[in-house]
Amino acid sequence: MINVGLIGFGYWGPNLARNISFNPDLELAAICDFSSDRLKAAKQHYPRVNLYKDLDDFFNDTALDAIAIATPVATHFKLAKKALLTGRHVWLEKPMTETVPQAEELIELAEQKNKVLLVDHTFVYTGEVRKIKEVIDKGELGDMIYYDSTRVNLGLFQQDINVVWDLAPHDISIMDYLMPFKKIEVSATGSHYYGNGIVPKSLLTIYMENNTIAHINVSWVSPVKIRQTLIGGSSKMILYDDNQPSEKIKIYDKGVVLGHTMEELYRLKVQYRVGDMYAPKIDDQEALALESSHFADCIINGKKPLTDGKAGLEVVKVLVAAEKSLKLKGAPVQLA
Amino acid sequence: MINVGLIGFGYWGPNLARNISFNPDLELAAICDFSSDRLKAAKQHYPRVNLYKDLDDFFNDTALDAIAIATPVATHFKLAKKALLTGRHVWLEKPMTETVPQAEELIELAEQKNKVLLVDHTFVYTGEVRKIKEVIDKGELGDMIYYDSTRVNLGLFQQDINVVWDLAPHDISIMDYLMPFKKIEVSATGSHYYGNGIVPKSLLTIYMENNTIAHINVSWVSPVKIRQTLIGGSSKMILYDDNQPSEKIKIYDKGVVLGHTMEELYRLKVQYRVGDMYAPKIDDQEALALESSHFADCIINGKKPLTDGKAGLEVVKVLVAAEKSLKLKGAPVQLA
Amino acid sequence: MINVGLIGFGYWGPNLARNISFNPDLELAAICDFSSDRLKAAKQHYPRVNLYKDLDDFFNDTALDAIAIATPVATHFKLAKKALLTGRHVWLEKPMTETVPQAEELIELAEQKNKVLLVDHTFVYTGEVRKIKEVIDKGELGDMIYYDSTRVNLGLFQQDINVVWDLAPHDISIMDYLMPFKKIEVSATGSHYYGNGIVPKSLLTIYMENNTIAHINVSWVSPVKIRQTLIGGSSKMILYDDNQPSEKIKIYDKGVVLGHTMEELYRLKVQYRVGDMYAPKIDDQEALALESSHFADCIINGKKPLTDGKAGLEVVKVLVAAEKSLKLKGAPVQLA
Amino acid sequence: MINVGLIGFGYWGPNLARNISFNPDLELAAICDFSSDRLKAAKQHYPRVNLYKDLDDFFNDTALDAIAIATPVATHFKLAKKALLTGRHVWLEKPMTETVPQAEELIELAEQKNKVLLVDHTFVYTGEVRKIKEVIDKGELGDMIYYDSTRVNLGLFQQDINVVWDLAPHDISIMDYLMPFKKIEVSATGSHYYGNGIVPKSLLTIYMENNTIAHINVSWVSPVKIRQTLIGGSSKMILYDDNQPSEKIKIYDKGVVLGHTMEELYRLKVQYRVGDMYAPKIDDQEALALESSHFADCIINGKKPLTDGKAGLEVVKVLVAAEKSLKLKGAPVQLA
Repeated sequence: MINVGLIGFGYWGPNLARNISFNPDLELAAICDFSSDRLKAAKQHYPRVNLYKDLDDFFNDTALDAIAIATPVATHFKLAKKALLTGRHVWLEKPMTETVPQAEELIELAEQKNKVLLVDHTFVYTGEVRKIKEVIDKGELGDMIYYDSTRVNLGLFQQDINVVWDLAPHDISIMDYLMPFKKIEVSATGSHYYGNGIVPKSLLTIYMENNTIAHINVSWVSPVKIRQTLIGGSSKMILYDDNQPSEKIKIYDKGVVLGHTMEELYRLKVQYRVGDMYAPKIDDQEALALESSHFADCIINGKKPLTDGKAGLEVVKVLVAAEKSLKLKGAPVQLA
Repeated sequence: MINVGLIGFGYWGPNLARNISFNPDLELAAICDFSSDRLKAAKQHYPRVNLYKDLDDFFNDTALDAIAIATPVATHFKLAKKALLTGRHVWLEKPMTETVPQAEELIELAEQKNKVLLVDHTFVYTGEVRKIKEVIDKGELGDMIYYDSTRVNLGLFQQDINVVWDLAPHDISIMDYLMPFKKIEVSATGSHYYGNGIVPKSLLTIYMENNTIAHINVSWVSPVKIRQTLIGGSSKMILYDDNQPSEKIKIYDKGVVLGHTMEELYRLKVQYRVGDMYAPKIDDQEALALESSHFADCIINGKKPLTDGKAGLEVVKVLVAAEKSLKLKGAPVQLA
Repeated sequence: MINVGLIGFGYWGPNLARNISFNPDLELAAICDFSSDRLKAAKQHYPRVNLYKDLDDFFNDTALDAIAIATPVATHFKLAKKALLTGRHVWLEKPMTETVPQAEELIELAEQKNKVLLVDHTFVYTGEVRKIKEVIDKGELGDMIYYDSTRVNLGLFQQDINVVWDLAPHDISIMDYLMPFKKIEVSATGSHYYGNGIVPKSLLTIYMENNTIAHINVSWVSPVKIRQTLIGGSSKMILYDDNQPSEKIKIYDKGVVLGHTMEELYRLKVQYRVGDMYAPKIDDQEALALESSHFADCIINGKKPLTDGKAGLEVVKVLVAAEKSLKLKGAPVQLA
Repeated sequence: MINVGLIGFGYWGPNLARNISFNPDLELAAICDFSSDRLKAAKQHYPRVNLYKDLDDFFNDTALDAIAIATPVATHFKLAKKALLTGRHVWLEKPMTETVPQAEELIELAEQKNKVLLVDHTFVYTGEVRKIKEVIDKGELGDMIYYDSTRVNLGLFQQDINVVWDLAPHDISIMDYLMPFKKIEVSATGSHYYGNGIVPKSLLTIYMENNTIAHINVSWVSPVKIRQTLIGGSSKMILYDDNQPSEKIKIYDKGVVLGHTMEELYRLKVQYRVGDMYAPKIDDQEALALESSHFADCIINGKKPLTDGKAGLEVVKVLVAAEKSLKLKGAPVQLA
C-alpha cells in the first residue's frame, strides 16, 4: 500500500482525495491545508486521515511515500522540489511550473531520485481523449492538419494569472498527446478589459511542424459554457463536444482531397468528400480513477507516466511563450 | 419604378434577383453573366428580363437606373466605378473592394455623382442583428466589452482569396454595426496546409478603443457548421447562434461586477451576477427583402444607406490589415 | 409533355406548382382556386398558366392530362372522382378521403379507367425516410418492434377537423411504408379543451400483427416544434429527428437480447447491447421533386405509384378508427 | 438528532444514505440489506453505521427513530406498516404501494400513530419543478390546459413490474403537484413485445376535471434518453427538458386566444399569440438534500410532508387504473 499525502484541499484537492481513497493500491494518509475551514471539511470526509496546517510537519510525516500537490501554480516548484528531495513520488497539478527552467529542474531531480513525477493532465485519461487517440493511431484521420478548441465559460477570475494559464493547459496537453508534433511558435491575443492587469479572454495560435496548427479560444467571460474541439485530418475530421450529455465524439467522413499533378496544383482545385458520421461508444470510467491507478502502477512497477514531467514541460513552454506574445499583441514568439 | 440591372448570376446573384423582382419599387430589368449556362438559368426564372453576355452592352442599356454587382471581389472596383460614372446607383457585394484606396475612391465618386452606394452587408438587415442592436441601444448590455464569433463550415475553397476575405466580412460588418468603435490594430493567424498558398482557416483579433476587442474564427475546413457569436457587456451578455432552428438570440443576465475603491481594485476581486436568460421574438422577414426596400427608399428619398461605402471601407481596412498580419504570423498591424 | 392542372393554391398548392413547373416531363397548364387573391398570386408566379375560378371551366379544359388536388379533405372524393371520370391521372393530397368507402371507390375507379392515382404522402419521398427504408430492408434493425413519433407544434387550428386528421397522416404513411404490417386495432385519446368540439392534441396507439405497435403524439398546442421519431428493432434502433439542421437520422447499435431457453425465460432476464451510433449521409433532393418525377414516370410507363390509392386507404382506415376511439376515450377500435 | 435506519442499499438506497448522513438533523444509524455484497459496500462508505442482514434485528434496533425504505414496491406495504406499528417515522420509496387499500391503510396508520409518512417523490423537490410551481402559482400560465411528458431511455427491464410502475410515478407526482386537479379516468396502451408478460413501453392518458388532460409516454426501449415535459396554459406554455445541461425550464409567451362572443364561437376561430421566451435561473440544490431537510423539519415540528401519504395514494390510484386499462388495450378506467 502506497501512503499518499495531499497538499491543498480547495477546489480540486477533494477530487484527488476521493480518487486516492478509493484506489486499492493507494492510501490517503495525510492532508495539508493552510485554511482551518478546509481542514474541518477534510476531517468530516476523512476522519482517520492525519491533518496538517504546517507544511514542515506535513513533510516530516515519514509515513508518506507520495505527495499530491493541488495548490496554486506559484507554489508548485517549491513544493514538488521538496517532495522529491525528501524522497517522495509526486502527483503535480497542471500547469506544472511557472517557468521552463523550473520544470526542467523537476524533471532532472525526479530522474536523479528515481521517483515518479506525474503531471495531472486529467483530460488525457478521459475515455473521450483516449478514444480519439485510438482513432488517430489507427490512421483513420489520415494526416493531421489542425486542432481547434473553444473552452469558455463564466468563471471566477483568478487573481494571480491570466486565463491562458488556467484553461489553455487542458487543450495544450490534449493536443500534445494526440498530435505530438514539434511546436515552433506561439501567437496570443487578448485584452485587459477590467483594468486589473488580468486577461480574462484570449486566443492562442500554435504553429507546428508540417504546417500543422492549433487554435485555442479560452475565456472566463462567456455567458455560456462551450467545450468544442475540432480536429482535422486529411481523411476524416472529429468534433469533440464535451458539453453534450452523450455522443461527445463524432467522427466525420469528410476530408479535403488535393490534386497532386502539376496541372492539378496549378488549378488549385480542392475537392471535398462528404460521407457518414459515427459516434463511437466511450468508456465512462472517471478519468481521475484511471489516472490514480496509473500513478500507482508507475510507482509499483517503475513505469514512466503517460503525463510525465516532459509532457508538463511542453505545456509550460507554450504558456510562457503565449504570455510573451500577449504583451506583443499577438506577435509570434519562438519556442526554445 | 427603379430599373435594376444585375451583374453575376452565380451563387449569390439569384438571391438578389429574386428579392429585386419581388420588391414593389424595384424592377429587375437586366442580367449580365459571362456564362451561357448561367444566362440560360436566368432566362428560365426571368423570361422577360434582358440578358447580356457582354458587359459593354449591359452598361449601354439606358433603361437601367441602378446596378447590382454580385461578382468576385477582384472585379468590384472596376464595375462599381463604371456604374457610378455612367450615373447609376450601386448595390455592391461584400467585401466592397480589394484595397482601401479603391473603397475611398468609390465613396468619393458616389458623393460627387450623388448616387446611392449600398454595400451588401446582408447580416445587418437580419431580424437577429437588428434585435441585438435594439437591445444594445437600450443600454441593456451596459458597457460593451467584446465580440467573439465562430463562423466555420466545410466549404469549397475559393481559388483566389483566403478564408478571411470570404467569411470574416460578415462578422466585421455585424460588429461594426453593433459596436461602432474606433479600430486600432489587427492580428491574424492561420496556415497554408495544402501548399496552395490559400489560408483556409484563420483567427482574427481586432483591438479597439476602450480596451474592447473582437475575436473572429473563420474556417472552410470544419466538419460541422458553427455560427456562434458571443457579445459581452458589463451588465448582460448575448449568445447569437445562427445555426439554431429557433431562439437564435439568447440574452443572459450575467455580468461581471468590478469593485471601484482603491482597496477593491487592490484585491482585484471580480464578482459575477448570474440571473435569468430570455430569448426575444425575432422578426423573420428575409434580410434581403428588407435590404431591397431600404435600397429603394435611399434612391427615392435621397437617404444614406445603413451599410454605405463608409461601412464597406471599415471592413476592407480590417481585411487588408489582417492579410498583412497573416504574413507576419500574428504580429499586430495598425489600421490607418 | 404531360399537362397538369392544379386545384387549390393555398398553403400547399404553391409547392406543388413549383415542383410541377420545374419537372421536365410535366407542364403546369392550369390553376383553379375560389379565391381571387390566390389567383392573383398564382398569376404573379406563373403568368402563362390558365387560371380558373370556376371548377367546371377547369375540368372542361381539354388540354389537361392530369389533375393535382390540394384542397381541404372534405372535397377530395368529389374532385378526384370527377378527375378520374373525365380521364385524368390524379395527384391527391393526404389524407385521401374522409371515409373508407370513398377511398375504395377511387381505387376501383382508377383501375377501371387505367389512370394513375398518387396520394401525396410526401415524407415517403424524403431522403431521410428512404434511407431508413434502405437500412431496414438490409435487415440492420433485426425484427421490427415499434414506431414512436412526436409531431407537435403551435399551429393554427383547423376549423373542420381534429389534429389527428391533419398531422397523423404523416406518421401513419411513413410507418406503413417502413413497417408494412397488418394493422389490427387503434386507440386514440385527446380532449376538447377549447369547447369548440375540435381536439387539438391527441395520442394514438396502433396495434399491429406480431405484437408490433405504433405510438403517435400529435399536437397543435405545443410551445415548441418537435419532430422526433424512434424506430425500434431487435438489433438496432433509430432516432429520426426532422428538426435538426443535420444528422437527422441516427442509427444506434443498441438492442435488447432475449434468452430463449426455458430457464432463461423463467428468469425473464433482458440484456442490453450498447455500441456505436452512426449518422448516414442523406440525399438532400427535395421530396416533392422526386415525387413529381415519380408521378410522371408512373404516367409515362404505366407504373404503380409507391404511394398509391391502397397506401392512401391504409391511412384513412386508421384515421376513421382513431376518430371513433377518441369518442370512446381510448377504447380500442378494430380495423376492418 | 433523529436516528434513521435504511432498508435497501441497492440502486437508490446509497443516494438516501448520502443525503441522510450529510443532513445536520439526521443521523444515518443503521443499514439493512439481504445481500452480503451490498452490506460490504455500505460498510466501506459508512464504517460506523450498524449493519443488519436480518429484518427483525433491524426493527429491534431501538435507537432508530425513523426508517427509510428503498426496496422493491412489492415489499413497501409490509415494511412501512411494521415501521409505523413500531413507532417510527417513515420515508417510503415511490410508488408507495401495490394497491389502493394498502396506501389507504398506511395513511390511516400514520395518522393514528402520529408519525410522519413521506413518500419519496423526489422530482417535487427539484429546483426545476419548484420553479414551475412558482410560475404557475403566480398565474403566469393562465388556466392550466395540459401536461405532456416523454420519459424514455434504454433501461434494464424490471422483472416484476411494467414500465408504467417504474417511470410514470415521476410524472404523475410532478403533475399532481403542479396541477392538483381531480383525476377522472385513465387510458393506457402498450404491448408485450418480448413475450415475457412485461410491458416495456407505454402511453398513458389521464382525463381530469375541466377538460384538462395529461399524456405520459414512458419506455425502457428507446435508443436515446428523452426527458421532455410540455405544460400548456391559456397564457403561456412551458418546456421542461431535464436532459439539457442548462436552461432546463423555458417559458414561452405563446398561448391560444379564444373568442368569447357567440359569433366568435360560431366561427371557431383560434388565434395565437407568439412572443418572447425566458429561462429562469434555477436553484441547483440537490433535491434529496432538500427533501431530507423537509423530512427532518416535519418530524421535529410536526408538519405534514409536501409529498405525504395522500400524494402517494394519488399516484397509486393512477397506476392501478393504468394497469387495468393496459389489459383493455386502452379502454378508459374510472378512478375511484
